[in-house]
Amino acid sequence: MTTTAEHSASAAGAPPATVAGLMAGIAGTGTDPARGGYTRPVFSTAEQDLRAWFTEQSELRGLAVETDANGIVWAWWDVPGASGPRARDNAVVTGSHLDSVPGGGAFDGPLGVASALVAIDILRARGHAPVRPLAIAVFPEEEGSRFGVACLGSRLLAGAIDPDRARRLRDPDGNTFADVSAAHGLDPNRLGPDTAALARIGQFVELHVEQGRGLIDLNRPVALGSSILGHGRWRLRLTGQGNHAGTTLTEDRRDPMVAAAACISAVRAVALRRRNVRATVGRIVPVPGGTNVIASAVDLWIDVRHPDDAVTAAAVADIGHEARMAAAGEGCGMELIEESLSPTTHFDTGLRDALAALLPGAPVLDTGAGHDAGVLAARVPTAMLFVRNPTGVSHSPEEHVEDDDAEAGALALADVLAGLG
Amino acid sequence: MTTTAEHSASAAGAPPATVAGLMAGIAGTGTDPARGGYTRPVFSTAEQDLRAWFTEQSELRGLAVETDANGIVWAWWDVPGASGPRARDNAVVTGSHLDSVPGGGAFDGPLGVASALVAIDILRARGHAPVRPLAIAVFPEEEGSRFGVACLGSRLLAGAIDPDRARRLRDPDGNTFADVSAAHGLDPNRLGPDTAALARIGQFVELHVEQGRGLIDLNRPVALGSSILGHGRWRLRLTGQGNHAGTTLTEDRRDPMVAAAACISAVRAVALRRRNVRATVGRIVPVPGGTNVIASAVDLWIDVRHPDDAVTAAAVADIGHEARMAAAGEGCGMELIEESLSPTTHFDTGLRDALAALLPGAPVLDTGAGHDAGVLAARVPTAMLFVRNPTGVSHSPEEHVEDDDAEAGALALADVLAGLG
Repeated sequence: MTTTAEHSASAAGAPPATVAGLMAGIAGTGTDPARGGYTRPVFSTAEQDLRAWFTEQSELRGLAVETDANGIVWAWWDVPGASGPRARDNAVVTGSHLDSVPGGGAFDGPLGVASALVAIDILRARGHAPVRPLAIAVFPEEEGSRFGVACLGSRLLAGAIDPDRARRLRDPDGNTFADVSAAHGLDPNRLGPDTAALARIGQFVELHVEQGRGLIDLNRPVALGSSILGHGRWRLRLTGQGNHAGTTLTEDRRDPMVAAAACISAVRAVALRRRNVRATVGRIVPVPGGTNVIASAVDLWIDVRHPDDAVTAAAVADIGHEARMAAAGEGCGMELIEESLSPTTHFDTGLRDALAALLPGAPVLDTGAGHDAGVLAARVPTAMLFVRNPTGVSHSPEEHVEDDDAEAGALALADVLAGLG
Repeated sequence: MTTTAEHSASAAGAPPATVAGLMAGIAGTGTDPARGGYTRPVFSTAEQDLRAWFTEQSELRGLAVETDANGIVWAWWDVPGASGPRARDNAVVTGSHLDSVPGGGAFDGPLGVASALVAIDILRARGHAPVRPLAIAVFPEEEGSRFGVACLGSRLLAGAIDPDRARRLRDPDGNTFADVSAAHGLDPNRLGPDTAALARIGQFVELHVEQGRGLIDLNRPVALGSSILGHGRWRLRLTGQGNHAGTTLTEDRRDPMVAAAACISAVRAVALRRRNVRATVGRIVPVPGGTNVIASAVDLWIDVRHPDDAVTAAAVADIGHEARMAAAGEGCGMELIEESLSPTTHFDTGLRDALAALLPGAPVLDTGAGHDAGVLAARVPTAMLFVRNPTGVSHSPEEHVEDDDAEAGALALADVLAGLG
């Protein structure tokens, strides 16, 4: 999975690997011929192959790799001579994730991991001698595309989700997170808040592909993050009367798909009611899902985001009201369940000022996308770097990063790690 | 898979098996714990197990079992002493199907097969000596739940679908009908019209669970069929711009899910516009289908039925018009593709009169459900018997038949087969 050029990066004094070269090494992993792009759900073969690739690349660079109780992979560059149980405390940590949405782009997650590896190479080539430990962390289930809760690994670490709830989460095949994590070597009873691991994070800096058009408009390759919009996910279940599509008269129907259609229209209407609300239905599953069958139930998922948490709450309340009306109008039942909710996160201003001094003139952007950095921000000083995406499109095969911008991102990250560490 | 009681039916002079007993023997095959009921798509393990059960039950009764080039299984009770290539021509044929919709009931299909086996037992017990050959036929992919075209086996037999088109049909996993049928022992090049097999069908009588409330209202166990409503299936594909649910402003979106919602609402509105139109969306698949992803495309399937084929065509034209408007309003593309279309079928009046004479006083009902009998009616004299469904619900686990009604159905079928043969 690695090229000769990448291997050579491990040799002392060898030129750094390139982000493009590292990304090329995983370009064939988890491709999705049906949807296009990549489908790399947590604990899938594709995601496991990427973890193996990360471990291999880290060990080539002499980093010490370990997986913690929550399935987070850490690759450590220790301070020479440091030892003892607190030797890794107060580290400078960077990293991202390797899982993807279904049919996602190549860069969302892996760009941050590959850039971190290249930043290590750059620091090595510069003869950097760390005075603080430095680590790359890879977080599981950032997208929530398998178990429904985004940033599950960082939430567990930070105590932002009840471990009992996490254990009971199910994937679309009905497997619990407890069972799947156990099958991949974790102890489900040890999932949850990890104060020792948190104490090791002095600062966390995540580099990520930008998922909007900010850097296109600014004509710049790299930005600092200022905040992450508050966001949440809700599951709406509508229940009616399953029946035969040919024999059931229209007036005898209680069809949850008709109610679902009204709910999806209401989600859009609610989004338009207040400025800057982003509300989306991207996933819908009718039961049983046959062409000639009136559904007995429909599940759909609603993603809502806004910079002001009160506006998010008001929008969700409006959606719930509209959904109740739509369900009642069709004689259907409805249930709206919060699956996750994160308030708007403002990154640590002290750390942001430090990064601004290290990257003079870099623009500052907020983002509507959730990140592990946003979860960790509640517990440790956290910052983000964004790298330009010339399509402005993300969670899609059209997501892109130009090679020059990727290298500029890795260089910025190296400067930040050196400046902090 | 068979009980001792059922085996004993094969012994000369043994009492006939019961429909309930035969149905109990397959009650555990293809159960669907997630949806409830049964999921037995064509060529699945469940449907193959049911075919093996049918073969075993037929051989227990001394019937000669063969599978034809289109995957239709035939069990023959030959006229003693008859031989030669035309010995099975002009047979009295009954039968049904063993595949199901996802999460379907126990009776839709298997009731007709089990009743045919019991009818043979009844005829044997009466000492019936056939003067015409008699056969039970089991048709593949009646529901169209795997490859999208209902009554695929009978359509191929009767020349009602281009074999090239049938070969290219794909299941949800992308497998072609050609490949899947080849993997199950058929020669894809031999799929298609089979005049020799058609010549063997003198008359075809299909017994089926009623899928509406006709016999409940009449308080009768068994009816004759008069006609099958014209019906068809259309796939509507809406294409927009996949993107990130958090970073894409509402005004920048071209979200095919919003267009799909408007289309589903339009399908209901069109159904209400003309009396007796039945129009349903039971299946919808967003691509890629992630919670935090604006879909790039949505496929949905529309089932439309009406006794007057001109009304069906007008309703579909209206749906196409509304869908085009909905797609344009969201900046999306749209494509409406006919997957199957069957005109309203009136069963052969001569055969129906013969059945009415054999089953004095039986009520006559039409049906909104499609059947292999409806496809074959274009080529051979065809009739149907319906057995009461006390819930009136079908394509659902709630579909039901009382034991006494099932036995009444088998007895009526035996009387019909004896009277014709």
